[in-house]
Amino acid sequence: MSKIPTKVKAAVLTEAFKPLEIKDVPVPELEQGGVLARVLLAGICGTDVHQARNELSIPTNTPVLQGHETLGEIVAIGGDRKLDIGCRELKVGDRIMWAHPFCGECYYCRVARKPYMCNSFGTGYGFVHPDNLRGGFAEYVMVTPKTEIVLVPESVTDEEAIGVGCAFRTVVSGFERLQRHSPIGTGDVVVVQGCGPIGLYSTLLAYYSGASRVVTIGAPAERLNLAKEWGASVTLNILETTHEERVQVVRDLTEGRGAEFIIEAAGAKSAFNEGFDFMCKDATYLVMGQTSPNPVEFIPNKLQQKQACVIGSGSADAKHFYKALKFIEAHRHEIDFSKMLSATYELEDIDAALENMRLGKDIKGAIDNRKRTCDCGHEH
Amino acid sequence: MSKIPTKVKAAVLTEAFKPLEIKDVPVPELEQGGVLARVLLAGICGTDVHQARNELSIPTNTPVLQGHETLGEIVAIGGDRKLDIGCRELKVGDRIMWAHPFCGECYYCRVARKPYMCNSFGTGYGFVHPDNLRGGFAEYVMVTPKTEIVLVPESVTDEEAIGVGCAFRTVVSGFERLQRHSPIGTGDVVVVQGCGPIGLYSTLLAYYSGASRVVTIGAPAERLNLAKEWGASVTLNILETTHEERVQVVRDLTEGRGAEFIIEAAGAKSAFNEGFDFMCKDATYLVMGQTSPNPVEFIPNKLQQKQACVIGSGSADAKHFYKALKFIEAHRHEIDFSKMLSATYELEDIDAALENMRLGKDIKGAIDNRKRTCDCGHEH
Amino acid sequence: MSKIPTKVKAAVLTEAFKPLEIKDVPVPELEQGGVLARVLLAGICGTDVHQARNELSIPTNTPVLQGHETLGEIVAIGGDRKLDIGCRELKVGDRIMWAHPFCGECYYCRVARKPYMCNSFGTGYGFVHPDNLRGGFAEYVMVTPKTEIVLVPESVTDEEAIGVGCAFRTVVSGFERLQRHSPIGTGDVVVVQGCGPIGLYSTLLAYYSGASRVVTIGAPAERLNLAKEWGASVTLNILETTHEERVQVVRDLTEGRGAEFIIEAAGAKSAFNEGFDFMCKDATYLVMGQTSPNPVEFIPNKLQQKQACVIGSGSADAKHFYKALKFIEAHRHEIDFSKMLSATYELEDIDAALENMRLGKDIKGAIDNRKRTCDCGHEH
Amino acid sequence: MSKIPTKVKAAVLTEAFKPLEIKDVPVPELEQGGVLARVLLAGICGTDVHQARNELSIPTNTPVLQGHETLGEIVAIGGDRKLDIGCRELKVGDRIMWAHPFCGECYYCRVARKPYMCNSFGTGYGFVHPDNLRGGFAEYVMVTPKTEIVLVPESVTDEEAIGVGCAFRTVVSGFERLQRHSPIGTGDVVVVQGCGPIGLYSTLLAYYSGASRVVTIGAPAERLNLAKEWGASVTLNILETTHEERVQVVRDLTEGRGAEFIIEAAGAKSAFNEGFDFMCKDATYLVMGQTSPNPVEFIPNKLQQKQACVIGSGSADAKHFYKALKFIEAHRHEIDFSKMLSATYELEDIDAALENMRLGKDIKGAIDNRKRTCDCGHEH
Repeated sequence: MSKIPTKVKAAVLTEAFKPLEIKDVPVPELEQGGVLARVLLAGICGTDVHQARNELSIPTNTPVLQGHETLGEIVAIGGDRKLDIGCRELKVGDRIMWAHPFCGECYYCRVARKPYMCNSFGTGYGFVHPDNLRGGFAEYVMVTPKTEIVLVPESVTDEEAIGVGCAFRTVVSGFERLQRHSPIGTGDVVVVQGCGPIGLYSTLLAYYSGASRVVTIGAPAERLNLAKEWGASVTLNILETTHEERVQVVRDLTEGRGAEFIIEAAGAKSAFNEGFDFMCKDATYLVMGQTSPNPVEFIPNKLQQKQACVIGSGSADAKHFYKALKFIEAHRHEIDFSKMLSATYELEDIDAALENMRLGKDIKGAIDNRKRTCDCGHEH
Repeated sequence: MSKIPTKVKAAVLTEAFKPLEIKDVPVPELEQGGVLARVLLAGICGTDVHQARNELSIPTNTPVLQGHETLGEIVAIGGDRKLDIGCRELKVGDRIMWAHPFCGECYYCRVARKPYMCNSFGTGYGFVHPDNLRGGFAEYVMVTPKTEIVLVPESVTDEEAIGVGCAFRTVVSGFERLQRHSPIGTGDVVVVQGCGPIGLYSTLLAYYSGASRVVTIGAPAERLNLAKEWGASVTLNILETTHEERVQVVRDLTEGRGAEFIIEAAGAKSAFNEGFDFMCKDATYLVMGQTSPNPVEFIPNKLQQKQACVIGSGSADAKHFYKALKFIEAHRHEIDFSKMLSATYELEDIDAALENMRLGKDIKGAIDNRKRTCDCGHEH
Repeated sequence: MSKIPTKVKAAVLTEAFKPLEIKDVPVPELEQGGVLARVLLAGICGTDVHQARNELSIPTNTPVLQGHETLGEIVAIGGDRKLDIGCRELKVGDRIMWAHPFCGECYYCRVARKPYMCNSFGTGYGFVHPDNLRGGFAEYVMVTPKTEIVLVPESVTDEEAIGVGCAFRTVVSGFERLQRHSPIGTGDVVVVQGCGPIGLYSTLLAYYSGASRVVTIGAPAERLNLAKEWGASVTLNILETTHEERVQVVRDLTEGRGAEFIIEAAGAKSAFNEGFDFMCKDATYLVMGQTSPNPVEFIPNKLQQKQACVIGSGSADAKHFYKALKFIEAHRHEIDFSKMLSATYELEDIDAALENMRLGKDIKGAIDNRKRTCDCGHEH
Repeated sequence: MSKIPTKVKAAVLTEAFKPLEIKDVPVPELEQGGVLARVLLAGICGTDVHQARNELSIPTNTPVLQGHETLGEIVAIGGDRKLDIGCRELKVGDRIMWAHPFCGECYYCRVARKPYMCNSFGTGYGFVHPDNLRGGFAEYVMVTPKTEIVLVPESVTDEEAIGVGCAFRTVVSGFERLQRHSPIGTGDVVVVQGCGPIGLYSTLLAYYSGASRVVTIGAPAERLNLAKEWGASVTLNILETTHEERVQVVRDLTEGRGAEFIIEAAGAKSAFNEGFDFMCKDATYLVMGQTSPNPVEFIPNKLQQKQACVIGSGSADAKHFYKALKFIEAHRHEIDFSKMLSATYELEDIDAALENMRLGKDIKGAIDNRKRTCDCGHEH
């Protein structure tokens, strides 16, 4: 059993638009079924950037401990928590990831059986007061009893796994919804709008869907290059092409009809309407990136003209972590999943990490505590 | 064999906003595989009203012979046309209905196998020059070789069948799409926006879907009464309730969550956004009534917040006529399908028929030629 | 708070083929989250009959307290159990039903999220030692903390609800699987093999599925009459028709092709192969009644010739109880659900109840404790 | 325009179990909409082998011109046939493939819109009298007006395309059915029974489905090696492993549960029951190889115990040729599709070709006429 620290360093957002402060945070008492984990990697998400700038639709209640995509190592287990979601034994030293907690009581938890739709999701990791130690931008993180935990398979490296924490599990969940509604058929064409982490994992799963062509649209070139490596047949730089040119490329690949599937992972408001222009009739549109609370001008009749199916999707359940890790474990010799993580930072450099994410310099950055020596005097 | 007339009376729209003119139209030569039918009933559709007032997104090329939902009696068959879509023999005197023609060559006809998505659909019945005799507002109508024909089962009356010609087949097709994407489950709640013909048939199929409650919203009271008879558990008069009240009624039926299924058959632009306020998470929204080319303000993020699936649907294939008539044949002793047809008119009273449809005085009106004696001197 | 008894009467199966014995069973201590309920109605299932005759594939470990479809009234709640599955408050005096317990730990509970596939299901109600008081053939029943509870809506009578306990929730679950795979379309034809409780509820949901015709096959006449009342267009007495005649009836309703959907709820081994003879091509076959461990001669090529989809289904989750009760609540003024319960018995007459079920004299019988005065001296 | 020959060489099966005879067959008159094609490659199918040995359930009416998977070059077009199924212009010299003809009149053609279920399919290519010139084992082949034609994309070689003619389009169709019923999810495990052409293409599409692991079972080693190249994670030689060992391998890959998807492409009767032993609960089983008319012992209760979905599938429509060729065109730089064709033969060596197919020496063999000089004196 590792020694349980009494207080740990954490990078706290004390006020929007201010630099984060490295503070000592006391470690809460370990509950029955809770797990204390040392943070190995804490991914930086676009949401963290927006939160630190008060750009989210949900207001930011500072102070807050950010970081919701975390890879941790078990330090202590509270009482009777024995198994991960795949029924594998949990023990100190294991590498784990985890979903947001869910209430287990509501309609979405118990009737729909889709806990990621549970209303308590907003109280998850990266969104609460530092005293809860429920965020990844710290040395340690407290995983609550109502949180489902997934073991990282031994053969999967930290760098390969970290993207599962937010983007990949979101894409696995989105594809599950997509395939249930309109399975991608052999030879279909898929357009992916966006080449951030969500767009890149979407490109990958579109490639592994039986589609013939995957067209990925975005910027900058570095991300588009990774899209190519991960299965895009064609990439289009959003900054170097016009709307008309992009539509024409899709038409040319589809004998003039348009693509059967469009996946929105761009976030830009203009992407939503552009998506309809890529469609053939009877197309399916998976929307995962529209996080802005602002409206667009939209002609509902387009839905009927295109006989389109539009599916909104966001977040994911622990099962999607589990499935994503299974996929990585199986395909890691063909696909270099570690390329998602383009830079790592010391906890003390969190502001630089957030800034580089904001500027699009990193595909994904992460706080890396693995070489960190904590106050207790030994390297963990 | 009936005598084939050389010319017939037709109500022609010579110019938008003008009264229709009863004209003599020569009967075109019967092609191989074509069918000449005497018009028994020609339904009046909202589209006819809009067309006569130049309110459609598609410009009206006058002169035009309107009427696309027609019940006819076979007068002559050109050559080798032997069977209806259900493989039943076609012969002079049979009552028939028919879909729009399709090209049989394009991707939608031959790969997707959804002929109602064929690009040639715009050249169908009710949209072309009177010389083609391809509209129901006439004594006779010419059914082209590329048109699929469906026999009206003997036990089904003209009045019961006429609604299949446009609204019911559209709803059968829409439900087919809906059920393929998200089957309505036992005990689910369905909200139907609109109580015109599309809304009424939607109410009926929602009732026969295993749902627990069907909430139908619209006006006037006469139509809502029919909605009640056809399966609505609750009806809400759109003119006598506020948005907040309507949302509250749906919440009260669903323990505060919202309905699993929403069906838009209202046409009003405001209906589209209101639909999202009726939803629980993971809801499915079938949009069939948004024919206006005008935009609304829409927040794409709603799709993700609700994890919604939105399906656009319009028109239908001959198979949906076939299925709709099967349904009527089986349920006609429980449901009075003839109530859809609330008024009939002489061909010469077409302007009154269109005006009453425009004013919402009729649920559906139709030109009734059944008692008509044509110029050839004998009653057909 | 009602007085909690220390011991209660229970009808115990001490040995296969012997009459059940009425014994005093001590009431176990109420666990945190457990519920003690007074038994109002305890349905008799064919499984109870087979179990008492050692005819199940699972060996019967006597002594056992049978009865797995129970309607109870809450007497005491252990600690922090606050809500039913629909998030409604639970309190003493409420009428409840419940599913089998599940482990909450395994792949089916936490990844597939289909607890009714959990391996611990065999340890549920009606299958364990009397000391657990986990069976309905008693005055009281102990509902364990890992059991999901559903409130019976106030407007639904005991007699209407009791069938939800086994047959109806099984059919709701089966239809959920069926509709997800192949939604029943408007105008389709459904054949239901069997008219026991599973067949009758299948007839009902098939009627409420948009199908045109429902053909129900079985015996005796009394059950077929109820099938007619609950939506069968045609009923066929299995004892008075030949295989060829039954196939011909289905062909005649489908222009020679066969039915789109077949639902097996008969149990007889011969039913499985007969089902394939009712099929059109591309048909879907839901199999719910094949509980025998014995093989049949089957030609796998039939699956390909018919391009059939065959779906096995059994048991159900608490959500299906919830949905079934929603359906009853909504349709109870059109459908007399209480006709499922054709006879009630005193606990002391359990052997007669089992015998009448075995002989097919009852559609469903139940032990009725509602007028029972227990030893504590007051009527509950 | 090429010169149209008046008679051509064809290898005719005059009597079962006898060597085929090379005969002169007169070229029938070209109908309106028909196409005469020079045979480039004519694939040898297991069905041809069985037909020549009278082992099919359908009796062989000799004399017959075999060969139903053919790649041809257009020599002449009869009248108004202008477009392939993808709306691309057809002209002399184009390379084409084609489906079986369909009637265009029946329920499956016009209501279900699945022409490959049309009852007239038995009269297709490779099954009729040599005078029709409707088989690939000849110099030329006559494509009838009711046959849908697909252009082979320019970049796709003959060797890459030939497998589309029977096995690949069958697998594309089977996967379309599978995905519609139960989409393969990210990280799922797929077991493929059989490594003949159907098994190999199934392995390929399973790999491109988002699955984590694909386990392919069969023999001989040469085919299993190709399975590995085409995406199998694990291969099991059916001749060198026991049933128990195979089941254990699948269990080990799935934490003891079994695989989510099983695809039967083996043909052996024993494969059908073995498939159930590979399943986890809620698994889906696609059966494509069970062509034998003989029964097996099968316990229907297995369907319920496993809560399984079993889907039979066979043959395919022209759309599946079209989709398969799209897939090859897109993936030909990653996958060597030409490895399917392991040997080519002169028309005169047809008996050797059939014998090598029977002995499993070839993965797939084909008659290769491309270097052939026909009687008219010039190389075509």
